[in-house]
Amino acid sequence: MPSSDNLSEGPCPVARSVAVVGDRWCLLIVRDAFDGIRRFGDFQRSLGLARNILSDRLRRLVEAGILALQPASDGSAYQEYVLTPRGESLFPLVVALRQWGERQLFQPGERHSVLVDRRTGKPVPLMAPAAKDGTVLVPDATEVRKVRE
Amino acid sequence: MPSSDNLSEGPCPVARSVAVVGDRWCLLIVRDAFDGIRRFGDFQRSLGLARNILSDRLRRLVEAGILALQPASDGSAYQEYVLTPRGESLFPLVVALRQWGERQLFQPGERHSVLVDRRTGKPVPLMAPAAKDGTVLVPDATEVRKVRE
Repeated sequence: MPSSDNLSEGPCPVARSVAVVGDRWCLLIVRDAFDGIRRFGDFQRSLGLARNILSDRLRRLVEAGILALQPASDGSAYQEYVLTPRGESLFPLVVALRQWGERQLFQPGERHSVLVDRRTGKPVPLMAPAAKDGTVLVPDATEVRKVRE
Repeated sequence: MPSSDNLSEGPCPVARSVAVVGDRWCLLIVRDAFDGIRRFGDFQRSLGLARNILSDRLRRLVEAGILALQPASDGSAYQEYVLTPRGESLFPLVVALRQWGERQLFQPGERHSVLVDRRTGKPVPLMAPAAKDGTVLVPDATEVRKVRE
């Protein structure tokens, strides 16, 4: 049976990502970090998560280079968890989770939070893979070229 | 502590998605389904997963309307799991996992599978959230408008 380590060593980038962030709490911590949450207590309040589980997931995200610990921005004795550039590059993943959820998991008229473009206040359009010329690529227009072992 | 049900009932689309697909095996089953895998035994060979865990995850994905069971395409007695339209709309999520993994989790020169545009054979460009005019939206250019409770 592939362990987490097998996943994280194979030639499939999806599997490697899943080994690192394919966990409900890690994904929600990353979401919260994009929303500006930085402190242990604030993550705990947002997620309602047991301290030991939250500690474990924060530690994993720091070890994976997704979050970094730094002194609090207000000069207090707190430490803060902030997204690294590697963590910031998870933005399309969080947007993909959001946009799928918005379209598939809410009833018509049911209210949900909305990701907006700050300049315009308009919702961020549906993100999709596209060719260089802008053509949206549906799954059948693509294929995965495997590594020959 | 929020249970899976709290997540799936709240106003955050990211949390609802995570409650449904925020699981390592569900994500890899969806990846395999995009790669054309349809039968229990083939998922099992691909994932090296215990039968009971695989059965559980396939059942969850069918219940969530992501996969549907249908008679085998070759007329045999097998049943096949195929992506529904709701499942197909997870394509950007799988692409986001892939593209983050490609860029963040491989050493330079280390080989990985590649998602290509069938027409051109070229790798699918990096997907990113963009405004209507095509401007790429970085995290700081966006904000989440929460539902007022």
